[in-house]
Amino acid sequence: MTIKIGILGYGNLGRGVECAVKQCSDMELTAVFTRRNPTSVTILTPGVPVKHMDDLLSMKDNIDVLILCGGSATDLPEQTPQWAEHFNVIDSFDTHAKVTEHFEAVDKAAQKGKKTAVISVGWDPGMFSLNRLYANVILPVGCDYTFWGKGVSQGHSDAIRRIKGVKDARQYTIPIDSALEAVRSGKNPQLTTREKHLRECYVVAEDGADLEAIEREIKTMPNYFADYDTIVNFVSQEILDQEHSGIPHGGFVIRSGKTGWEEEHGHIIEYSLTLDSNPEFTSSVLVAYARAAYRLNGEKNFGCKTVFDIAPAYLSPKSNAELRKEML
Amino acid sequence: MTIKIGILGYGNLGRGVECAVKQCSDMELTAVFTRRNPTSVTILTPGVPVKHMDDLLSMKDNIDVLILCGGSATDLPEQTPQWAEHFNVIDSFDTHAKVTEHFEAVDKAAQKGKKTAVISVGWDPGMFSLNRLYANVILPVGCDYTFWGKGVSQGHSDAIRRIKGVKDARQYTIPIDSALEAVRSGKNPQLTTREKHLRECYVVAEDGADLEAIEREIKTMPNYFADYDTIVNFVSQEILDQEHSGIPHGGFVIRSGKTGWEEEHGHIIEYSLTLDSNPEFTSSVLVAYARAAYRLNGEKNFGCKTVFDIAPAYLSPKSNAELRKEML
Repeated sequence: MTIKIGILGYGNLGRGVECAVKQCSDMELTAVFTRRNPTSVTILTPGVPVKHMDDLLSMKDNIDVLILCGGSATDLPEQTPQWAEHFNVIDSFDTHAKVTEHFEAVDKAAQKGKKTAVISVGWDPGMFSLNRLYANVILPVGCDYTFWGKGVSQGHSDAIRRIKGVKDARQYTIPIDSALEAVRSGKNPQLTTREKHLRECYVVAEDGADLEAIEREIKTMPNYFADYDTIVNFVSQEILDQEHSGIPHGGFVIRSGKTGWEEEHGHIIEYSLTLDSNPEFTSSVLVAYARAAYRLNGEKNFGCKTVFDIAPAYLSPKSNAELRKEML
Repeated sequence: MTIKIGILGYGNLGRGVECAVKQCSDMELTAVFTRRNPTSVTILTPGVPVKHMDDLLSMKDNIDVLILCGGSATDLPEQTPQWAEHFNVIDSFDTHAKVTEHFEAVDKAAQKGKKTAVISVGWDPGMFSLNRLYANVILPVGCDYTFWGKGVSQGHSDAIRRIKGVKDARQYTIPIDSALEAVRSGKNPQLTTREKHLRECYVVAEDGADLEAIEREIKTMPNYFADYDTIVNFVSQEILDQEHSGIPHGGFVIRSGKTGWEEEHGHIIEYSLTLDSNPEFTSSVLVAYARAAYRLNGEKNFGCKTVFDIAPAYLSPKSNAELRKEML
C-alpha cells in the first residue's frame, strides 16, 4: 500500500517534490498537473502522466495527497482553499502576515470535504518555526534570533533585475559572523538589521550601462537594500551562469535562555541548515508532511494543520515501536 | 487555572524542575516528595511543603502532573509504572536498551488509571531524539551523527573515583573539532569512537598515591576509556572545587543527506546545545512536557507517550492561533 501523490505546478518546487517522492519507498507519484499545455511539460519519472489542472477533479479518487507547488503571492491563496475540499493537500504558503486568513479559508474547505490540509510547510516557515517553538517552551526566559543564508534571495535578485541597465543578477543574503558569535556567547545582544546580515550582489550590466548609477540604485533601494551593507560585483553573464546558477540557502535559529533560581545558568539552543538546493529541501519537507496528512486523514483528523499541530511520529514510515527502539 | 505540579525526588533534577516551574506562569508547585526524612530537606520555594513519598497517594487529587526526578538505573523502572496509574507522570528514563520494556509497563499502568505518561524526556533521549527523527524524515538518504559535550559525564567521573588512590575526579567528554568539520563538510565520513570524542579527566589523588598507576588504570579502563584518547590532569581538591564544580553539557545532532534526481545536492541539518547546567536544562524539558501531559489527559488521550507522539503545540502555553501568528 503506497501513498499516491499528485503534484500541482511543475517549477523548481514541483520537480523537487518529484525527486523527494522517488526517495520514499512508501510513496508513488500518480500525476503532475500544470496550467500550461501538458504536452509542453516533460517530467523526470518514466510513465507518469502530465495532465492539465482542469483534469484534477476527475483524479480525486486516484490521489491520496496533492502537493501544491505554486507561489505564495497569487497561486496558493486561491489554490489551497479550492483543492482542500477535494484532496488532502500540503502547501508552502510563506506570507507570514496572511497566515491566519489562509489557515481559516483552508480549514473551512477541508472540514467541508472531510480532508486534511497542512499549510506553511518547508523550512521557514516550517522547520525554523518548529525550532522556535520547541526552544521557547524549554527556555521561556530568553531571546530568539533567526539568521538566513548564506543563500540566494529570489526577491532581491528580481529587484536588481528591474533596474535600468541590468541584464541579469543574483543576490546572496549572508549572515554576519560576528553577530552569530555574539549570540552564541549568550550575551543576548540587540542587533540591528545591518548588524545581522549583509547582501552581496552579482550583476550583469548591459553594454554601456552606467555602472556607478546601477550600484547606487541598488545600495539605496528602500526595504531591499538601504538598511544593509551591500556589496555589488559586476560580472559577465558567463561568470554568473557558471558560478552563481545554484540555489543554495540555509540559516540559523538560535535561542539563548536562562535557567536556575536566579537565572544564573545560560543555555544556547541552535538549529542550522546548510542547503545546496533551497527548493529541493523545501520539497523534502513537503513530502514528509504529505505522509502525515495521509495518516491523519485515515484517523478522521480533518481540517487545516500546521507543523505545530502534528506529532513527529506521523512523519515517519516507521512504526511507533520502531521509532522508540531506533531513534529515541 | 494553573497546572499543579508535584516533584518526586529532590536532587539536582528535582531542584531544576522547581526552578523551571517558577518560570512558567501557568504552573505552580504543590509539593515535593522525598524518600528521605522530609524535615531534612529544604527547598527553594517559600510555602511549599516537603512530604514523604508515602503521602503521595493521599495527594492524588491535588496534583495535575507528577514529575519523577529519580535515576534511570533503579528508581524510574519501579516508580514510573507504580505512579502512572494514579498520576499523569513525566520521567527522564534514559536506558536506551530498556525503553521498550519501560514503555509497556508504564502504558499498562496509565491506561488502567486513565492517566497520561510521557517517558524518556530530556535532551538525549528527548530533544536529540526529536531532531534525529525530523532530520531523517526530511532527508531519508543520508547519515546521522551525534556528538556529546563538551560536558561532564557523571558515570565516567564515578568510574575514576573508584580507582585506588583517587580522592575525587571530574571527567569531560569533548567532541573532536576535526570530526565535526568533516561531518559538516558533507563528506559522510565513517568515524571511529576515538575519532569522535576525547576524554579529559581532572583527578585529585590521595597523598602519596602512585600517579602513574592511576593514569594507566584510567587510560586502559575497558568501555569507559580504553577506546578513547584520554588526557589525565592531576589537580588539587581546591582547583577541582573552584574550576570544575559546574555540570555543563551539550552536543550536536547532525544529519548529512542528499536530494535530487541523482542525489546531486547535499544538505546539512544541525541541532546543537550548549548547556551551563545539564540537570536544569533537562528539567526545563520535563516541565514543558508536563504541560502537554496535562492537556492530553484533558482530551482523554491516555497511556504512555514519548516526545515522538506529542504535537509541538501541546508544549506551549499559547493558543494554536497565537502560535500561528507569532511563531510560524
